[in-house]
Amino acid sequence: MKFIHTSDWHIGRQLHNESLLDEQALMLQQIASLAAEHGVDALVVAGDIYDRAIPPANAVALLNRFLDTLLLELKIPVIMIAGNHDSHERLGFGARQMSGSGLHICGPLERHIKPVRIESDSGAALFYPIPYAEPAMVRQLFEVELSSHQDAMALLLDEVLGQDGDGLPKVVVAHCFLDGGSGSDSERPLSIGGADRIDPMLFSAFDYAALGHLHGPQFKGAPHVRYSGSPLKYSFSEQHQNKSVSLVELQAGQPAVIELLPLTPRRDVRIIEGYLQQLLEQAPTDPGREDYLMVRLLDTQALLDPMGKLRSHYPNVLHLERTGLMARQASGDVERDRVQKGELEMFSDFFGQVQGEPMSDAQRQLMTGLIEALHREESR
Amino acid sequence: MKFIHTSDWHIGRQLHNESLLDEQALMLQQIASLAAEHGVDALVVAGDIYDRAIPPANAVALLNRFLDTLLLELKIPVIMIAGNHDSHERLGFGARQMSGSGLHICGPLERHIKPVRIESDSGAALFYPIPYAEPAMVRQLFEVELSSHQDAMALLLDEVLGQDGDGLPKVVVAHCFLDGGSGSDSERPLSIGGADRIDPMLFSAFDYAALGHLHGPQFKGAPHVRYSGSPLKYSFSEQHQNKSVSLVELQAGQPAVIELLPLTPRRDVRIIEGYLQQLLEQAPTDPGREDYLMVRLLDTQALLDPMGKLRSHYPNVLHLERTGLMARQASGDVERDRVQKGELEMFSDFFGQVQGEPMSDAQRQLMTGLIEALHREESR
Repeated sequence: MKFIHTSDWHIGRQLHNESLLDEQALMLQQIASLAAEHGVDALVVAGDIYDRAIPPANAVALLNRFLDTLLLELKIPVIMIAGNHDSHERLGFGARQMSGSGLHICGPLERHIKPVRIESDSGAALFYPIPYAEPAMVRQLFEVELSSHQDAMALLLDEVLGQDGDGLPKVVVAHCFLDGGSGSDSERPLSIGGADRIDPMLFSAFDYAALGHLHGPQFKGAPHVRYSGSPLKYSFSEQHQNKSVSLVELQAGQPAVIELLPLTPRRDVRIIEGYLQQLLEQAPTDPGREDYLMVRLLDTQALLDPMGKLRSHYPNVLHLERTGLMARQASGDVERDRVQKGELEMFSDFFGQVQGEPMSDAQRQLMTGLIEALHREESR
Repeated sequence: MKFIHTSDWHIGRQLHNESLLDEQALMLQQIASLAAEHGVDALVVAGDIYDRAIPPANAVALLNRFLDTLLLELKIPVIMIAGNHDSHERLGFGARQMSGSGLHICGPLERHIKPVRIESDSGAALFYPIPYAEPAMVRQLFEVELSSHQDAMALLLDEVLGQDGDGLPKVVVAHCFLDGGSGSDSERPLSIGGADRIDPMLFSAFDYAALGHLHGPQFKGAPHVRYSGSPLKYSFSEQHQNKSVSLVELQAGQPAVIELLPLTPRRDVRIIEGYLQQLLEQAPTDPGREDYLMVRLLDTQALLDPMGKLRSHYPNVLHLERTGLMARQASGDVERDRVQKGELEMFSDFFGQVQGEPMSDAQRQLMTGLIEALHREESR
């Protein structure tokens, strides 16, 4: 029994107002290729399928095409749950009509968590899909008193672990924040102040816990209690994460064998830092010129259209930070500098940037005369 | 081969800001009961499933429950197409995964219009679902020059009629405006100035044309080229329509046998007209007190809180028209009347409405004195 665990696709998401749909389409193709190559028996997606409750129509169409590929061409069953970004009702529409064809979408939480049984040549396994649910919802559905994410998940997992599994391996699919997990900037908090944290040990009795919510691949408590992470970097804080999907192999009575299959985006998401001139000089030999970039400029003086200059080499600069300038501004250096420098030096800087070469002596003399004339005019 | 033809459910629609979801839920139950009672082999829904491209989540949940009933409990296949109100991509999500279980949803138009074959004890039939498509879309998809709805539909129907149907009866499902059809206030025009009209004879070669768009049940050209109409009245202009679904029976080589099965809403949608006092008096014996009402008041004088008074008997008055007042205003009567009547008469009217009885002589005298005093004050 072999399956791929992935999560947090966030189809339809933007990065600094730039649509990522083309990148997501390529990434889904990679996932489909990996599933085919490794001959998996199922694909598990642990929530946050879309980025929003009401995804754009082209995001819906993209997911639809992907599922047609997986189910109709590759004949690989798919199990997916709604995450905190998804509309449970919308995602779950038609779920019962789809399950016969191997597409198991779990939208709104139901009182009985029905397992999906996946068959394989080397034996079957049971997958228990638990969609993301607020504690209030669990409280209402099960008519019990509870208020924390921890208690809500404990109740749901008890329900699942209490079910007779015919001795088959049990895999739980859930969307939550494990205590001690590392977040990044692109996850929406489930609740404020850490009340969303769940003890990883709750999941240890399963043969594998396929989790979603955190965007960096990681495990907590035990290697088989695991986040696959998102397939793409959805914030610059993820620049050093290596994105992957988890290939999981289960054999009765054995611990799960887990392999991370790396994903390679067409365009990386990264931060570059340096002086403008230096960055522009090294750009032509940079193999990642198409990457989505945040640029941190160390220059301390005024710069003419740095974004335009950078984009002529790096078309996908999404954000510019004037780190050098901010540091100086913070210490009041800039204002002092401007006063000390005088008009001639400032114009000379400007001239150099616009013309690409320094002023000649004649030009310098002309400018000096002009500035003096203006000062005389001013002091009349 | 027997099927029910319905259309224009507009799930999620409001009537004068009042949600109709409960009425729609009851209406869908009636349709399910009729389908079960008549032992039909299929249910056909000819577009405008939802009222909006992005329906509210509870509308999605309602349709989902209905489809579970039809497909899982009653085992009746459902064929539905997107209308001009639906988002084709959203409605069509997962369509290929659903078709195996008998749910055939046709979202975006495709170049090949694939028939749905429905089996029955008395023989099979082919259903050709054609989702609503703008002429521009047909032009692009088929790479031909055309600009009218008529030409677009003619091309699509040619495609369908050209297909080998194994001698089985052919049913087409489409969403369009047939030339000569009667509209009502609740349809959204497909285009301006009548350019959306289509010749009914285009459909005559089919054994049955299950059409959607117009909300009143009707046929054009021939009895088997038919609109089922909407199951509920979605505007007051439909007050005299008898809503129904069409029960269609097909036998090879025979004309379709069509029966209209009436639908009875929990609350009717109607207009009542009269004087306020008279309407309030007859209200207690009106069996339709819960109906959704437009009230036309013939009274010509000022009335105190007529909506409040009416709603104490008819809780679902949605709209009030002061027909009497408007007619007089139009002719300038009101202004003249107000001038002629004088302050005492106007106050006397007001007093009678608030107190429920006329002023006593003493009260009348007191008021006369007060008005005179005010006039003296005014003319100083």
